[in-house]
Amino acid sequence: MKNQDWLNVIQWNEQGLVPVITQDISTNRVLMLAWINRTALEKTLQCGEAVYWSRSRNRLWHKGEESGHIQKIVDIRLDCDNDALLFLVEQTGLACHTGRLSCFYQHPENTEGNIQWIAVDPVLKKPSEIYK
Amino acid sequence: MKNQDWLNVIQWNEQGLVPVITQDISTNRVLMLAWINRTALEKTLQCGEAVYWSRSRNRLWHKGEESGHIQKIVDIRLDCDNDALLFLVEQTGLACHTGRLSCFYQHPENTEGNIQWIAVDPVLKKPSEIYK
Repeated sequence: MKNQDWLNVIQWNEQGLVPVITQDISTNRVLMLAWINRTALEKTLQCGEAVYWSRSRNRLWHKGEESGHIQKIVDIRLDCDNDALLFLVEQTGLACHTGRLSCFYQHPENTEGNIQWIAVDPVLKKPSEIYK
Repeated sequence: MKNQDWLNVIQWNEQGLVPVITQDISTNRVLMLAWINRTALEKTLQCGEAVYWSRSRNRLWHKGEESGHIQKIVDIRLDCDNDALLFLVEQTGLACHTGRLSCFYQHPENTEGNIQWIAVDPVLKKPSEIYK
């Protein structure tokens, strides 16, 4: 890529990261929230598949590298403050490591003021079958 | 609310915040990414409208308090790592302070390797008419 201006526009945080929202283009479901750095965003644009920065593993994370559950990039959007990204993707398989379509599966059930997070989406595949 | 366990489950960052994705329930568009703290999340649940923590103003931010562009909560979801939230909302008016439906309106246009962020969504209302 000829210049880095498009990367310099982004308001990276102190760790050199910004959050990325990933949305499934076919179901419109928000699949996950991940983090990305300059290198991962360049790689995403180059290869056409979502590459994030894994904060837990402290390394680049090509989504699906182990599970095969890759995310083909359809569109990328930057927000008005230049500090958050949105990936519109074609998701192969499941986005969540728990074997659910989306990572956002917990709902706050309110029973007379007693609130509990309840898993409301089904597990479609056992994690042990995803990560062998 | 009887107990705070549901708030203690959430993995707040060092600033006591987590990111919130806001999605429009009617159009399925991702509207914005904001930040929230314990108080703002409690208020959101109590009043049924999105209340965030404004990092720039360093105070609670009842979305629409000035513009009238409130977000009625339809569902709240917590992700698998307990460190990101998703609000599904009925958006009154426009989510973005630029007068666009969504804050995610910039697309990376690639002209022979020269990448530029281009605004691809229309301004539907002048900001000067939103904030008087």
